[in-house]
Amino acid sequence: MANEKKLVEAITSMEEDFAQWYTDVVKKAELIDYSSVKGCMVIKPAGYAIWENIQKELDTRFKATGVENVYMPMFIPESLLQVEKDHVEGFAPEVAWVTHGGLEPLQERMCVRPTSETLFCDFYAKDIQSHRDLPRLYNQWCSVVRWEKTTRPFLRSREFLWQEGHTAHATEEESEERTIQMLNLYADFCESVLAMPVIKGKKTDKEKFAGAESTYTIEALMHDGKALQSGTSHNFGDGFAKAFGIQYTDKENKLQYVHQTSWGMTTRLIGAIIMVHGDNSGLVLPPRIAPTQIMIIPIQQKKEGVLEKSAALKEQLLKAGFRVKVDDTDKSPGWKFSEAEMRGIPLRIEIGPKDLEAKQCVIVRRDTREKVIVSLDELETKVAEALETMQGDMLERARAHRDAHTYEATEYEEFNKLLDTKPGFVKAMWCGDEACELKIKDDTTATSRCMPFNQEKLSEKCICCGKEAKKLVYWGKAY
Amino acid sequence: MANEKKLVEAITSMEEDFAQWYTDVVKKAELIDYSSVKGCMVIKPAGYAIWENIQKELDTRFKATGVENVYMPMFIPESLLQVEKDHVEGFAPEVAWVTHGGLEPLQERMCVRPTSETLFCDFYAKDIQSHRDLPRLYNQWCSVVRWEKTTRPFLRSREFLWQEGHTAHATEEESEERTIQMLNLYADFCESVLAMPVIKGKKTDKEKFAGAESTYTIEALMHDGKALQSGTSHNFGDGFAKAFGIQYTDKENKLQYVHQTSWGMTTRLIGAIIMVHGDNSGLVLPPRIAPTQIMIIPIQQKKEGVLEKSAALKEQLLKAGFRVKVDDTDKSPGWKFSEAEMRGIPLRIEIGPKDLEAKQCVIVRRDTREKVIVSLDELETKVAEALETMQGDMLERARAHRDAHTYEATEYEEFNKLLDTKPGFVKAMWCGDEACELKIKDDTTATSRCMPFNQEKLSEKCICCGKEAKKLVYWGKAY
Repeated sequence: MANEKKLVEAITSMEEDFAQWYTDVVKKAELIDYSSVKGCMVIKPAGYAIWENIQKELDTRFKATGVENVYMPMFIPESLLQVEKDHVEGFAPEVAWVTHGGLEPLQERMCVRPTSETLFCDFYAKDIQSHRDLPRLYNQWCSVVRWEKTTRPFLRSREFLWQEGHTAHATEEESEERTIQMLNLYADFCESVLAMPVIKGKKTDKEKFAGAESTYTIEALMHDGKALQSGTSHNFGDGFAKAFGIQYTDKENKLQYVHQTSWGMTTRLIGAIIMVHGDNSGLVLPPRIAPTQIMIIPIQQKKEGVLEKSAALKEQLLKAGFRVKVDDTDKSPGWKFSEAEMRGIPLRIEIGPKDLEAKQCVIVRRDTREKVIVSLDELETKVAEALETMQGDMLERARAHRDAHTYEATEYEEFNKLLDTKPGFVKAMWCGDEACELKIKDDTTATSRCMPFNQEKLSEKCICCGKEAKKLVYWGKAY
Repeated sequence: MANEKKLVEAITSMEEDFAQWYTDVVKKAELIDYSSVKGCMVIKPAGYAIWENIQKELDTRFKATGVENVYMPMFIPESLLQVEKDHVEGFAPEVAWVTHGGLEPLQERMCVRPTSETLFCDFYAKDIQSHRDLPRLYNQWCSVVRWEKTTRPFLRSREFLWQEGHTAHATEEESEERTIQMLNLYADFCESVLAMPVIKGKKTDKEKFAGAESTYTIEALMHDGKALQSGTSHNFGDGFAKAFGIQYTDKENKLQYVHQTSWGMTTRLIGAIIMVHGDNSGLVLPPRIAPTQIMIIPIQQKKEGVLEKSAALKEQLLKAGFRVKVDDTDKSPGWKFSEAEMRGIPLRIEIGPKDLEAKQCVIVRRDTREKVIVSLDELETKVAEALETMQGDMLERARAHRDAHTYEATEYEEFNKLLDTKPGFVKAMWCGDEACELKIKDDTTATSRCMPFNQEKLSEKCICCGKEAKKLVYWGKAY
């Protein structure tokens, strides 16, 4: 118990300092370590295994919609980055430049990809000739680099892992349809796998991706009331196609420009999982994404039969399709409980000599800490039920928290006060003018998170300037 | 048929120009495309899907031995690269240097990882404290960069994809055991999945990895008689541990240095598959690695029921666990045959109106082009048999080719003549002196491929200098 205390004391409480709590969880749950490379992190096995599960789930969903994986070079020659004007303005200030190859200076410097639109466009310009070549539905899993000044594990680092989908279509309707399809896929993944509800909507022109015609986003609310952009999907129209000359001959043998999209999700999602579900004992992983769903912890493990039974239960549950481990180290049970909690393992099973006798075990949920005695005959069913219920409860809890921290304002003073005192989303009307977005950011540090698909009319007037309102906007302070 | 001819004519024959044949297959089978980034390639869906299957197979095998995946930064600060003397000498001349981040010059330049020993060592130095922390069995899947002067798709490119395992152990015995374990895993993977026999052995000091105590290798023989190093496994002893200060306290509470290994396989394997199995109609993929194992090609597809039956057979075979597609495009059957052959798809199934009537179809193996009429009642069994037999036959054929092109020499003149006129491996004795390796390379352009585990004594004397022989060596010209 002394040990247990020590482990829990090792993390700052959320209420005391949320940022420090986050950093503590990331370290103590052994998700990452800092590296000697400034602004970059080492993703440790417990963190990488979450990413592998995210990849598996997303990749299967992508492929079900016809997407194929490819791999583009990691370097972009400077002249290629400069082809599309808005795009280079958006990214050039934050890229890493390679200037020498081996012992020789390069004739033209190259950046490490911050995103690969330019590479895909360069490829599509040669690759696409006819309407028969369309659509092209490509995706790649890779790492990208953006030279951030201040960094935080998973949320903002100079190098991060992601997937970037890049598609090309014959018409604007098709590219718009694919953009929305992928946003919906992302939202569904977040809700059903990560137990994380999101607001789907469109970014304002000020917040959209460099070079996009429209950017759609899913916005999640973290435990501290800050917003996190959790996935974006962009419709480029034919802007990139015109800059790069990506044309196809249509059925009437006429040359047409393609219409393109791109869409991405990143290791940032791991940060979202931590900040949506975590508590003062550490990480809490939704069962569907947890690399280990069940930790079996033997009690009085030196007593006859305890370790054997633990191993047998593990095999039984593995066979039934659960991801399960036994902690048979020589630490105390209390220490093992704390460790499994810190790592966010959804269920723990306790089994000791008395349980053996009674042919039962104890199941404890990570989120509620509810203890249930379960007959070993019913173990598989009860474990499946517990995991399923926990997954659903986590989503409901996150939704309730999000809803309880979503406010409405129709007057600027009230709007300011809410943003100042009530962490969360504030819904308010907007005239569509960038000047109002800038003023709001100056006054409150909040930004427009999105114009939700689910539009309401709270008032006739813009919250900021009082002119005619055009859109309902979710506002919030963001990571 | 005119079309069919055109597709086949599009590739140079192996006998005429093997290098051009290789390039043609790589392009026409749509595995890669060249990119605007010199020396880097675009891996297209057909190529990347092979890599995904290689990843899946290897990753499962790694994990079964206790290996966990992690992710290290892609940059190495110059001072970190320089910590181990041999290592920096080996790699510094061929790395890409990042000198600017955003608009500012970096205080210290960094290279893009050519391999990650230094990053893992830097991490292990903080991460490992006690004997309880050992072994550490980490692996990462990523891309690396080596600034090659001349490049060829898959075989040698400035950026390539790979996995690099990096382990740390308490003792030299354990690190040696892991080094050999991974080499055996690689060899078994090549034989049983890629149908590619390999020679397992140790590299000479001249050929070993920069910083390693010993390097083990698997060497495969390509169709043109050239050798291809297909995977390597290195034992570092405590060399890196001493340079980086990676120490642990043992059970007696004494500080000890760890012993390390690293081991890697790359997208080069795709090049090996092409050059071991390909023919003058294109790629030939071993069934176990083929992204599409079966292509169903409808004959007279406008006739009633043909397309429906093709789709039904596809569903039936998918359900039975095969990877299968239907080519229902409006191309001619002959063109479709050629395309499926160019892409190396192991089996094609032809089904037309007459087959429908007779409740049968035609199965054609890619390697032998043998046509078999199969009753639809037995389809699944026959398909499984054909794929299984083909996998075995491909390995046997490759082994027979390798054996038929492996020679022995005991006199230097004979040795020179063999290397000059008979493409393949030449087995010959060696005194252990680097001077002889250098002379042989000067005289023949061949290098020592490995000292095979399977040692024989062909003579008492070194093939080159005539002094006492210490080892049997496989010599050959290599990619």
